[in-house]
Amino acid sequence: MTENKYADDVYTGATEIAGGRLIRSQGVTSPAGFRAAGIPAGIKISGRQDLALVVNEGPELTAAGVFTMNKVKAAPVLWSQQVLKSGSLRAVILNSGGANACTGAGGFQDTHATAEAVADALSNWGTETGAGEVAVCSTGLIGDRLPMDKVLSGVQEIVHELAGGISGGTDAAYAIMTTDTVPKQAALHHADKWNVGGMAKGAGMLAPALATMLCVVTTDAVATAEQLDTALRHASRLTFDRLDVDGATSTNDTVLLLASGASGITPSQDDLNAAVLAVCDDLAEQMMADAEGVTKRVTVTVRGAVSEADALIGARTVARDSLVKTALFGSDPNWGRVLAAIGIAPIELDPDKISVSFNGNPVCIDGVGAPGAREVDLSAADIALDIDLGLGDAQVSIRTTDLSHAYVEENSAYSS
Amino acid sequence: MTENKYADDVYTGATEIAGGRLIRSQGVTSPAGFRAAGIPAGIKISGRQDLALVVNEGPELTAAGVFTMNKVKAAPVLWSQQVLKSGSLRAVILNSGGANACTGAGGFQDTHATAEAVADALSNWGTETGAGEVAVCSTGLIGDRLPMDKVLSGVQEIVHELAGGISGGTDAAYAIMTTDTVPKQAALHHADKWNVGGMAKGAGMLAPALATMLCVVTTDAVATAEQLDTALRHASRLTFDRLDVDGATSTNDTVLLLASGASGITPSQDDLNAAVLAVCDDLAEQMMADAEGVTKRVTVTVRGAVSEADALIGARTVARDSLVKTALFGSDPNWGRVLAAIGIAPIELDPDKISVSFNGNPVCIDGVGAPGAREVDLSAADIALDIDLGLGDAQVSIRTTDLSHAYVEENSAYSS
Repeated sequence: MTENKYADDVYTGATEIAGGRLIRSQGVTSPAGFRAAGIPAGIKISGRQDLALVVNEGPELTAAGVFTMNKVKAAPVLWSQQVLKSGSLRAVILNSGGANACTGAGGFQDTHATAEAVADALSNWGTETGAGEVAVCSTGLIGDRLPMDKVLSGVQEIVHELAGGISGGTDAAYAIMTTDTVPKQAALHHADKWNVGGMAKGAGMLAPALATMLCVVTTDAVATAEQLDTALRHASRLTFDRLDVDGATSTNDTVLLLASGASGITPSQDDLNAAVLAVCDDLAEQMMADAEGVTKRVTVTVRGAVSEADALIGARTVARDSLVKTALFGSDPNWGRVLAAIGIAPIELDPDKISVSFNGNPVCIDGVGAPGAREVDLSAADIALDIDLGLGDAQVSIRTTDLSHAYVEENSAYSS
Repeated sequence: MTENKYADDVYTGATEIAGGRLIRSQGVTSPAGFRAAGIPAGIKISGRQDLALVVNEGPELTAAGVFTMNKVKAAPVLWSQQVLKSGSLRAVILNSGGANACTGAGGFQDTHATAEAVADALSNWGTETGAGEVAVCSTGLIGDRLPMDKVLSGVQEIVHELAGGISGGTDAAYAIMTTDTVPKQAALHHADKWNVGGMAKGAGMLAPALATMLCVVTTDAVATAEQLDTALRHASRLTFDRLDVDGATSTNDTVLLLASGASGITPSQDDLNAAVLAVCDDLAEQMMADAEGVTKRVTVTVRGAVSEADALIGARTVARDSLVKTALFGSDPNWGRVLAAIGIAPIELDPDKISVSFNGNPVCIDGVGAPGAREVDLSAADIALDIDLGLGDAQVSIRTTDLSHAYVEENSAYSS
């Protein structure tokens, strides 16, 4: 895991991890065999980039995906789940400016028509493609139909903009942004000459199981759909599923992993898992840092639990507690609220064995306040909240944020 | 149930309900046989009233209580649960200015010493009392020991201030306030010449099962401890357990019901249930209206559920959703967030059968937006959010509030 790699807010630099070199500012076109583009198609009223396309040029087209666990699923989620049953994807078309959720049968037809248009355009461009090889992702306001004239003319245009290298992926990363303030990309160049790249958007509704997020990860490794599925589920469970800004789960969450096999290298499952995990972990960290209204980047760790499941529930309960989150916004080491929050988690605990620290400073030992607890300085942007249940060996960390005026402002001032 | 009885924020007026007349501004000393007092004992730095005492002068001393379900329980909760096993209480001593939670063995000794002091003071005053007949309630910041010199001298003083009628109860209601802006009282005068009166405090941490709250309800009816327990659990389940401001549950929640039998009237269990319910319901409504940072009083109703349990979980999930709550703060009829919120509730639902209305205006019908949905006016302070799952007959309403700048301010600006 790659916590606190960056001392400031600039997403740059490189890290040695998972047998390779992780670089921010490179994304889905970093692995060989992928091209991408992002354009303004007029879906967003602002006129900003709002349509992205990622194309796998092969030679292989294996793919895997994980989707929102919300029972209310957007049309593009229902579509993409269906096409992914084949374990194969040629392309992913993504739009911001509208979620196409709660739009009924008409909305599903819009998604289908979009996939058809992408397939036709790619076929005309020389890459024979069927609609069933095209995943669709949408993000934005729930409940409105998409302006399909703009989407379809955008599809015609975007295939002409496809590019490899850094530019295509970066354009795509910009085009999927909603309330994100920065694009989010990461690429891992493995020492064995294969690569993994990813882009993500997600700034609010970051949630229990999958943040509100669209994420496309690519690799030029050779891997079966099953191997990709294993690697993606492993990574999601440890990264996106442990990012919880406000307990909300989107109707549109989608994470896709596409492999081109263009490197000719077949990594072991462990190496593939580690590389995909490193990229997803970095993207999750970027999403936390850019969450709506964030002024504190908070890692809640529950250790000493009797099981990983208990540690996860405990950490999530504290990470979602509004009173803990507002205290952290106020840089207030109000550990009593942490005890009150963990105390309602449906897990095994003994109130007299709970110890709490902020940034390594003990504030509560065996259920009782520690000397100097009220004076701990939490004025910096990064806060590590550590809760030791004192019962077992299991440990889980959840990334979250504070609850700030800016969060309220951003989520009340307009429909998003 | 008594929703929206009051068109404005002034807690006055009377309502015919439960076979009697409900009046705000009268509280625990409204029934015969009770005296109460509230004084400034110096526990709060502000110098405001912070110590309250309610005494049952009999002839009967039956009592019942419900307590926080938080596993982290404050010392006074542990004490009061223990003494209530007898089904009998002479007095309740309550302090604001400190929760006496997470204070270890020393904190429990402080609670015990407080009960002993009350028993001694009442005995010296001519009412023979044992410490085991005195419940203790505390509210305020978690984690600090109480200033026991002030508590104990306050106990000596407060017995001299005990009074019946309106004044004693009102003084007590003021003394238990923390971030409450108004005292909360309600009394029901039954047509059959018996009475129920109550006071409560609670403005934040209002929660899943019991709001953060202290509440004392008294009656001059003749009733056994078992009958009181039945009436109190029935009322709590339908009122305090359905008030959910921020999903947090306090370490100190306590609701007590004491009966003096002074009226000589023995009501039926149904009549007792109805009267206690009416008083608790009114107090819960007052707590919602005075919740920390409230700008909207919101009732979330889930109907058409397959079971009451499902309706309750669904309503609670929506009532706690930060994105729904911030939208309501912004008077934004953003029904897509309501769909996204209900979609993560672990209940039976069919996305294509869900309909939503705000204040009676349909905004979503069978999972799809209704015409004019974005134009619904939510600028008034009261919002009824109605979600019909279209599956069955069960229905539950939860009272909640919006998530406002004032909530963030109040909970981040100082330790509380």
